Amino acid sequence: MALIVQKYGGTSVGSVERIQNVARRVAQYHREGHRVVVVVSAMSGETNRLVALTQALSENPDPREVDQVIATGEQVTIGLLAIALQEIGVPAKSFTGWQVPIHTDSAHTKARILSIEREAIERELDAGKVVIVAGFQGIDVEGDVTTLGRGGSDTTAVAVAAALQADECQIYTDVDGVYTTDPRIVPEARKLDCITFEEMLEMASMGSKVLQIRSVEFAGKYKVKLRVLSSFEEGGEGTLITVEEGQSMEQPIISGIAFNRDEAKVTLLGVPDKPGVAYQILGPIAEANIDVDMIVQNVGHDGTTDFSFTVSKNDLKKALGILEEVKRALGARAVEGDRSVCKVSIVGVGMRSHPGVAAKMFKVLADEGINIQMISTSEIKISVVIDEKYLELAVRALHKAFDLDAPQE
Amino acid sequence: MALIVQKYGGTSVGSVERIQNVARRVAQYHREGHRVVVVVSAMSGETNRLVALTQALSENPDPREVDQVIATGEQVTIGLLAIALQEIGVPAKSFTGWQVPIHTDSAHTKARILSIEREAIERELDAGKVVIVAGFQGIDVEGDVTTLGRGGSDTTAVAVAAALQADECQIYTDVDGVYTTDPRIVPEARKLDCITFEEMLEMASMGSKVLQIRSVEFAGKYKVKLRVLSSFEEGGEGTLITVEEGQSMEQPIISGIAFNRDEAKVTLLGVPDKPGVAYQILGPIAEANIDVDMIVQNVGHDGTTDFSFTVSKNDLKKALGILEEVKRALGARAVEGDRSVCKVSIVGVGMRSHPGVAAKMFKVLADEGINIQMISTSEIKISVVIDEKYLELAVRALHKAFDLDAPQE
Repeated sequence: MALIVQKYGGTSVGSVERIQNVARRVAQYHREGHRVVVVVSAMSGETNRLVALTQALSENPDPREVDQVIATGEQVTIGLLAIALQEIGVPAKSFTGWQVPIHTDSAHTKARILSIEREAIERELDAGKVVIVAGFQGIDVEGDVTTLGRGGSDTTAVAVAAALQADECQIYTDVDGVYTTDPRIVPEARKLDCITFEEMLEMASMGSKVLQIRSVEFAGKYKVKLRVLSSFEEGGEGTLITVEEGQSMEQPIISGIAFNRDEAKVTLLGVPDKPGVAYQILGPIAEANIDVDMIVQNVGHDGTTDFSFTVSKNDLKKALGILEEVKRALGARAVEGDRSVCKVSIVGVGMRSHPGVAAKMFKVLADEGINIQMISTSEIKISVVIDEKYLELAVRALHKAFDLDAPQE
Repeated sequence: MALIVQKYGGTSVGSVERIQNVARRVAQYHREGHRVVVVVSAMSGETNRLVALTQALSENPDPREVDQVIATGEQVTIGLLAIALQEIGVPAKSFTGWQVPIHTDSAHTKARILSIEREAIERELDAGKVVIVAGFQGIDVEGDVTTLGRGGSDTTAVAVAAALQADECQIYTDVDGVYTTDPRIVPEARKLDCITFEEMLEMASMGSKVLQIRSVEFAGKYKVKLRVLSSFEEGGEGTLITVEEGQSMEQPIISGIAFNRDEAKVTLLGVPDKPGVAYQILGPIAEANIDVDMIVQNVGHDGTTDFSFTVSKNDLKKALGILEEVKRALGARAVEGDRSVCKVSIVGVGMRSHPGVAAKMFKVLADEGINIQMISTSEIKISVVIDEKYLELAVRALHKAFDLDAPQE
């Protein structure tokens, strides 16, 4: 008898029939004697529909009111799933974010979870019920409804699992696990049986879209056993995300190739090369709640340097506006923006013990005639920013070069 | 400078454009210096869509979960209206039922308002904001979301007006006021400039559909000045619902003809004619939360009597099921149900001082060959239950006979 948190995304609950399917799967776990908490997203398309309504009324709608509107998507799903479960004889009770409550900060549309109260959920679990929690939402100190941003339901699931010290957090999605890369780009991509949190973190942040990055951070931090599974296939084991560095003796050097099309490059040219500059540039960007991804600063010359970073394509216009101010304040030479870039990364804990991985990556790209615009490295990841048009070519070439095409042992 | 509560129904907020229209109207009052609280319903069709989802999953869905689902309709509208107001420069803030909070009992899908906290609303009004409150919903002591039943947004508006001691409660709807009867049935029906609470109560309860009966009760009880207006026409005065018995010297005997198609007749035959019987019959009906409308008990003979009452057609099956139990307990002879009935009523405070009104009504119906199945009278209303097929004929004949066709002075 285990405590299991299951999360079903919008596609998995996209219709009455699919909600009934989810109910049957949940019922099976409940019948086996497990304590089950289910976190659900809005029915697919619903959040987009609600966002479109707010945007039809304003180009820049008040985020508090946007949250008030879009949080309803999940509230509908939790009620419907509770009804579907009760209909097949499984006692169930739904909770919105504020009913749990899930406390967040007040960064509307991008809020972060501060704490989750366990009492209400545990009381219902003790009463033998399946507890259904609305993903993606919470409540701030003002009593206002907040949302966690796209993919926030994953974060809700992991945070609930952490708060309840669940035995496993299962993320049901429309793919059956984590792949070495996107199979739509590389047909030879294969499913990984397991991947480390660190690798998953790097994969997710690159836009692998299987799991939201914050949910993986949470899972790693609170040691939540996380499993990605298909909600449409029965019996699959999915991909287990573990703390250990792989189960197999012979760890592959690279676990996967990640990429992200949603990158835009911003460069501030001729910045005075003195202490405090990076903060003066990125401080206002952070205050505007713009997520910065890669940051590169080259060695300066003539007392100035160039400072580049990448942001989401959506945030480019806003970032450029802010940097015009910064440029004046710093006396920098110019601000440049480029939307036609993408990021490609190779990820693997194995690279720690294998030198020469970066060199190999750069050679593969050079052999294909792909120019590298920015480079950033971490312990287990090497990322490059390249022209968007080379994305598929780069991913395929790297996937092959690092032996990921080979069938798994 | 007045404190005005305005309520807009689902048709008035049925699209982005209509929400913008509502925002412009609200902005006008705000610019004139009034303190404005707006209560809104779900966008038209939305509550039906949500109810249909719950019913697709279960014939008898858990009312708590139904409320969880259907309360989202109003939550969407309040956020959208707040955005629309802000877009035209009017500061605004939205509140769900639980955010106000509006405390209700726990009769899910039919909850009653117990109290409304003024603090949050008044704080935002003091800050110069338009406050937007979700109609139709509240929160119970368990912290569960409740809804007030169809038309509940009117009740919310009046209850908010009462709690805030507003100067006027304006109900915007798709008609421009209260008519002597439904113009779809009698084209000569005319708009009333004013009507008393008591008359309105009798008109509303008969299905005039302009205002929900509970909202009128509330308004009368708390002396809220209530006005019914069109949300599509500019400049109309609508119909004022007042405490005084009419403004004109020559009060008409009858103010209007009301009717209700949603009536089903239930009869318990051969009930022992002894004290406590009525309670034994209607107690279990009330416990099942079934609203009873007309109740008629004839003089008994042979120690037994027949007991009839009417309920909503939707509740007939449930009522008959309960009465089968009651029949056995009381040793009654039989239970009968009839769906093909309707109720027609003449309403007017003038009938207090004019004898012979009932006789005239019965003669009009007799002249048309309409059989009367049940009669019930109050100080200002006479109602009859007749065969449903005679509804239009009866209403037209009565409207003409009581001089309501005549053009208003």
